[in-house]
Amino acid sequence: MPIIQIELLEGRTIEQKRKMIKGVTDVISETLNCKPETVHIIIREMKRENFAKNGILFSEME
Amino acid sequence: MPIIQIELLEGRTIEQKRKMIKGVTDVISETLNCKPETVHIIIREMKRENFAKNGILFSEME
Amino acid sequence: MPIIQIELLEGRTIEQKRKMIKGVTDVISETLNCKPETVHIIIREMKRENFAKNGILFSEME
Amino acid sequence: MPIIQIELLEGRTIEQKRKMIKGVTDVISETLNCKPETVHIIIREMKRENFAKNGILFSEME
Amino acid sequence: MPIIQIELLEGRTIEQKRKMIKGVTDVISETLNCKPETVHIIIREMKRENFAKNGILFSEME
Amino acid sequence: MPIIQIELLEGRTIEQKRKMIKGVTDVISETLNCKPETVHIIIREMKRENFAKNGILFSEME
Repeated sequence: MPIIQIELLEGRTIEQKRKMIKGVTDVISETLNCKPETVHIIIREMKRENFAKNGILFSEME
Repeated sequence: MPIIQIELLEGRTIEQKRKMIKGVTDVISETLNCKPETVHIIIREMKRENFAKNGILFSEME
Repeated sequence: MPIIQIELLEGRTIEQKRKMIKGVTDVISETLNCKPETVHIIIREMKRENFAKNGILFSEME
Repeated sequence: MPIIQIELLEGRTIEQKRKMIKGVTDVISETLNCKPETVHIIIREMKRENFAKNGILFSEME
Repeated sequence: MPIIQIELLEGRTIEQKRKMIKGVTDVISETLNCKPETVHIIIREMKRENFAKNGILFSEME
Repeated sequence: MPIIQIELLEGRTIEQKRKMIKGVTDVISETLNCKPETVHIIIREMKRENFAKNGILFSEME
């Protein structure tokens, strides 16, 4: 019954999300030996001003 | 001092959120024996293209 | 398909968790109008040295 | 390699986020003895109707 | 710079985690078009008494 | 009413946590202009086999 939360910068297409979700579910169900219908995935999209590394917002990096 | 995070599909009314929050706070404070004013709840609303089960985005289901 | 994450201080009994889970699931499914079997709940227990308010760890409060 | 998630009410300026991120990264890298470039921070902004305390939504408090 | 949080029931081997991590990182970096070294994954293991579905703790299901 | 979740590798002392919590609370309350008693912080400690970067578990890195 794995629950996966994926945090990424906004701007991906539905097609990218679709492939990502399919691929992650396959990997999880194969390696953990669980049914794909028990795999739940939450995607959270971040604005570039809401993600930071090294003390700097992504919106401030060129 | 419980902190609760609730992830749900978008589209609920304020009235639904109000009742949900009130009910969850009551249950938590009664069963955990803590004061309601220490119960904090975060609601996160997801677009249907940002939640998946069984490798399929909710926006792709019928 | 709500997913709920509950963060609480450790030390609760199974009986308390059982009642809490049952009550929260009932409230969520009634107020959001969704089937109880779609309600998933994750409980995370924190040591008192891993939760803080007002700049002070709970393990330091008497 | 600390990962920090900060949940706050919406309405802060970029300048406030910039200072917050810089300050938190400095504190974390100094107290945990890790390189600032390994500190990742996610900011999540909540609408006032999506945060509650004491069973009441923030949008309902005057 | 995706950050992935995976919540699963405890009891998996290091070998399973290793394969899961490798597979998820490959899928994410290919579908999102990002470098694998920017993919960070947090695994959280739950006791069966800390995960519930349909109002019932997993430790209570036979 | 900010809520902060900090994920870090296990092995830090109480003294380090105490300083980290104090420093983060000061930064948050100053930059966001909120009272320190509204700042809540959750610390989550990860085993090295439960954190990964670049497709590799930290327990596997030398």
